[in-house]
Order: sequence, then structure tokens, then C-alpha cells
Amino acid sequence: MAKKNKSSLKEKKGVSISEITNLSSIKAIQDKRKVEIDPVALRNSILNKDITALSRAITMVESKNPKHLEQANTIIKGCLPHANKSIRIGITGVPGVGKSTFIETFGTYLTSLGKRVAVLAIDPTSSITKGSILGDKTRMEALVKDENAFIRPSASGDTLGGVARKTRETIILCEAAGFDVIIIETVGVGQSETTVHSMVDFFLLLKLAGAGDELQGIKRGIIEMADAIAINKADGDNLKNAKLAKVEFNRALHLYPEKESQWAPKVTLCSALNNEGIDAIWDIILEYIEITTKNNFLQKKRNEQNKFWLLQTIENQLKSDFFNSPNIKKELAEQLKLIENNQTTPFAAADFLLKIKSEKSL
Amino acid sequence: MAKKNKSSLKEKKGVSISEITNLSSIKAIQDKRKVEIDPVALRNSILNKDITALSRAITMVESKNPKHLEQANTIIKGCLPHANKSIRIGITGVPGVGKSTFIETFGTYLTSLGKRVAVLAIDPTSSITKGSILGDKTRMEALVKDENAFIRPSASGDTLGGVARKTRETIILCEAAGFDVIIIETVGVGQSETTVHSMVDFFLLLKLAGAGDELQGIKRGIIEMADAIAINKADGDNLKNAKLAKVEFNRALHLYPEKESQWAPKVTLCSALNNEGIDAIWDIILEYIEITTKNNFLQKKRNEQNKFWLLQTIENQLKSDFFNSPNIKKELAEQLKLIENNQTTPFAAADFLLKIKSEKSL
Repeated sequence: MAKKNKSSLKEKKGVSISEITNLSSIKAIQDKRKVEIDPVALRNSILNKDITALSRAITMVESKNPKHLEQANTIIKGCLPHANKSIRIGITGVPGVGKSTFIETFGTYLTSLGKRVAVLAIDPTSSITKGSILGDKTRMEALVKDENAFIRPSASGDTLGGVARKTRETIILCEAAGFDVIIIETVGVGQSETTVHSMVDFFLLLKLAGAGDELQGIKRGIIEMADAIAINKADGDNLKNAKLAKVEFNRALHLYPEKESQWAPKVTLCSALNNEGIDAIWDIILEYIEITTKNNFLQKKRNEQNKFWLLQTIENQLKSDFFNSPNIKKELAEQLKLIENNQTTPFAAADFLLKIKSEKSL
Repeated sequence: MAKKNKSSLKEKKGVSISEITNLSSIKAIQDKRKVEIDPVALRNSILNKDITALSRAITMVESKNPKHLEQANTIIKGCLPHANKSIRIGITGVPGVGKSTFIETFGTYLTSLGKRVAVLAIDPTSSITKGSILGDKTRMEALVKDENAFIRPSASGDTLGGVARKTRETIILCEAAGFDVIIIETVGVGQSETTVHSMVDFFLLLKLAGAGDELQGIKRGIIEMADAIAINKADGDNLKNAKLAKVEFNRALHLYPEKESQWAPKVTLCSALNNEGIDAIWDIILEYIEITTKNNFLQKKRNEQNKFWLLQTIENQLKSDFFNSPNIKKELAEQLKLIENNQTTPFAAADFLLKIKSEKSL
């Protein structure tokens, strides 16, 4: 602090500090930025398929700045009438199943058909690791360079609900920007598969063939959610095992009652690396969309998903308001102790806590 | 009304109306009743295994009268230190599987071992039909007469949560009254199995053997909840099919990952009618209790169940306060319409509704 004259800021003799940081140029840059965040203009650019505008709008959706969020809401509202027109596909599978390679091959196949493809992700761990499943875009080299593809890593957030909301809003923006297919990937940590399932039309589970006993260790409820199971890496020496796995998965799917969609979930083989079986998966999805459009299940599902998200958001907020109140936090811990010591029941404790809260808000 | 002298009340000439209905005797009866509802005395009678006192306390738990409920809470609190000592068993199965006969035979077997057995029920339909699974006690002739058995039909209520609370509180009372085994039966309407599962130590699914394909049509998640599956009516011509069904159920159970309890669910055959295989089911339950007591899972499970009920009760109340507000009801319908017409998102609608509510409560 005392060595004023030896400040490292003085090292570069050619350019004076004032030249770089003079206030008027800073202000000019800031003004330019301010002007650019015009929700109506940004929305119009999105409708004109301007990817830079789309990215900026998504950044605003993901912002923590209340003003940005307000602007984001305006943009989303403007995009809504132009949304809802894509096929939304959820993809999950354990690490190592080849999700990135699959999305690379599948996405490239779709753009080769003239489709525009957006790839999003829900990764509840991204807020902790600061990484994200799609962060390493180098794993999707071709798709990243494809001008008809748009790849966006998972939003980060403190709660899965928060991440989910941002992703749902991003879907609307992407659809308004004219993307025909939205792929939402998840690694399947915690409840993330259920979250993805509740925002897509079609849910695809990627699996590997192992040494028999395929179903052991599969997370509860996942098979039930799947509209199709694709056994990846079904190539070379692996092909025989993959075929056996197909039989076993078909039997497992058979255990569940018929779905309201009247869709019987399919099991299929593919090799994303060798680009085999990828077209068949797309055909399955198209068949699903055709059936569920005809019997009106697709629209019904989307309406129910919307209602679910509305109620879910309200419930989460009500709970978070309640349980995050410092007063309740303290008393809750106390009541839990009393319950454990058989001094009160869960119901008497609940009544007590609700009474505290309502007295406080009076 | 005009025929005063021909009133049917005058038919019995031997006794005058005034004698029966004189006010002082009415008051004496009422006073007596009032005196009898002394929570401390009632609790003491319960601890002394007085079944009449137990029944009265349960009636108070089930009452809609706030004063009775307050007294009920005092009784429950007094019973709590003497509760938690029974084995709580949930039993479910579709109508026709022979639940009543099973409980009759199983309960009678337990009392023959010197156990005291309470049989409760959770029947979410009982509030509508005014009937109840256990209402027809004639189906459990022997158990009804057994002095070591106590049978109580399902509480009625507007919500499953309400019925569940009353049943949970009744369990405490029964345990304080010295019952060693509490059986909770459900027909499995709606979420009632999950509700029962969340208040018992051991969950038994009763099944019938059919013509193969046993797993078709089983409600989602039920098999996952079962600690044991008993294939009932495994007698006579049915025995062969029952054995086949056992193989299939074993395979289905095998599909799920190992449980935290370290308990591998069992499949077993029985014939409640012929009193066959009933002792084996009790042995399975005892083995489960032994394993989960040793590895401390049982206590952990009960603690988690308590916490679940505490949080559940609070959440239900928060939601019901919110969604039953007339203002919110009206605006919610409006917002749902806007969502369906792509004029707002579920999230913007939720924000709007939450804002209305918080502004109103200020």
C-alpha cells in the first residue's frame, strides 16, 4: 500500500489509465447496454430467429436482478403466442450411457432433416459444481457448429424448482425463436427426471446393456415415466447383450397398466457412435406425436403440465415463506425434539406452528 | 298438530310424559355425562385397558366439536409416553381378495398367542357412503367376540389427510391401552395405501392368483411399498396358480433396488379360510421387526413418519388456507384460462396469485 510508485498499474507505459477508464467512455458503453435491453425489440429479434437476442433473453431469465426478471417476464409474455409449437423431448440416462454422443448424433440427424433443434439441460448440481452437463460443449462438436442447432447449458439455482422454472421459460423463448424440437437433457440427480418429465411431450430413457439383470439399480419410477427406452452402444460385441436387455426391458414395461396416452412404450436399440438406429427413434417419437395429437392426449398433457407448474410454484412459495421464517425455524426444531421424546404428536406440533405463524401475521 | 288429544305420545297411559322428560332428570343425565368427560380420568382408564374408555376417547378424536378435540388432545398427550410399543401392520388388497377373512384368521391367531390386537381402517370413501370396510363386523364374527381384540371402523372425514390424522391419533390411544399389534386395513382407494404405508412398520399386500399375468393392473408403486405379498386363497384348485403367481411376484420384487431397511420383501402363500400359512406371515413380520430393530431402521422409520406427518399437516393447511380463499378461487380460474390461451405462463400466474394473497393479508 505504501509502494505507490511501484503500482503494477503503471507497468504499461504506452497507455495511461485515464485513457482506458475515462468515465465518459464507460458511460457510453453502459448507455449502449441499457438501450439494447428493450424487451419489445428483443422479442421481435427472437421472433426473427436472432440467436444472439435469444441468448440475451435467456440470460435475463436466469438473472437474479429483479429488474432483469421483470423485463424477462415481458419478453416471455410477448413470445407466448408464438410458443407451444415444438416437440419437447426429455432425455435421461446415467453417466457413461453416452448422452452427449447421442444428442450430437440425434440432433445432427434432425438438422439434416431441416429441423431446428435447441438443446437445454436440467442439472441440479450445476449451482454447486459451477459445471454443467452441457458445459463441455466440445463433446458435441458438430452440433455446436450447426447453425440450425442451439445449445444452452443448465441454468443454475438454489432449488430444482428454480432451475426448472428458468428452463420452462427458456423453452418458450426457444419455441418463439422457431425451434422445432427442444431436447432437455438431465443427468438424473435427485428429482430432476421427474422435473424434466413434467415439461416434455416425450420422455426417452437411454440405457446400456450390461451382464443381464438390467433392471437392478434403476431408479424407482423412471421406467414408468419412459415413453421409449433406447439401449445405446448396441454395436460390436455388445449387440448380443443389448438384444437380451431389450427383451428384459420389454417385459418390465409390460408390468405397468396401460397409459392414458394409449401409447405403449417402446424399447429400441441404437449406436449413437455408429449412427445406427437413430432414425428409428425419431420415427417412434413422430408416431407418438401422431397418436397423442389424434386422441388429444398431447394437448391435455400440456394443459396438465401447466396447471401442475402453477400449483407447484404456489405451493413451493407458501412452504418456503413458512419454513424460512426465523421464528418457525427455531420452533420447528423444538417441536421435532418434543415429538421424538413422545411429548407431542406431529399434529399437535403442526397446529402449534401454524398458530404462531398466523398470530405473527396478524 | 291440531289433534292434540290424539297425540301418539299419549298412547302409553301408564307413564306420563312429564315423568320421562322432567327437566331435572335430563339435567342429571347431562351433568353425569359432563363429569364423565374428564380427560385425566379417561386417560387413566385407557391405561387400565378399559375398552369403553378407549372407545369414548376415539369418538372424541373423531368429533367435530372443537371442545371435544381439545379434550382429545389432552388425552392423547397423556397417552403418548405409553404409546409406540406395538407392531403396526398395514394391510391392503383389492375387494374380493379376502381381507376381512384374512384379518379374522390372522387376528384370532395372534390373540391365541396371547397378543392383544386392534384393527383400524382407513377408508376415504366412508364419508361418502357412510359405510366402511370394517362397518360390517359380521364378517369378523370370531374377532368381534374376542376380548383381546378391538375393532374400529374407519373415521370419516372430508379429506384423506383428516381421516389419516384421526387414525394416527387412534393408534396412540390403542397403544396406550396396551394393544400389542395394530392392524390398519385399507381398500386402496386413491392415495389411501400410501397414507397407510406412512403410518405402519410393516406393509402387507394381499393378492389373488389369477390366470397368469399377475402384475397387470396393479396400482403403481404398491409393489414397491410391500414388505411382503401374501397370495391368499392358495387352496384347492387354486394352489397351482398361486405357486406360479409367487414366482412372478418374486421376480417383480427383484426388480427394485435394495431397501434401506436391508429387508428383502417376501412372497408367501396362504389360505385365510383354511387357516393355512397364517403363522408363516406372522413369522415374517417378527423377522422384519428383529432385523429393523437391530439395524435401527424401525426407529428411524417412525421418526421419519412423524416428521412427514408434521410437514404434511402444515403443508395441507397452508394450501387449504390459500386455495380456499374465495378471492383466490375466482382469480385462479381466470389465470388458468389465460394460461390455456397462451396469454400467461404458469409462473407469472403463480406470482400474480401470491401477490394478491399477500396484499390481502397485510
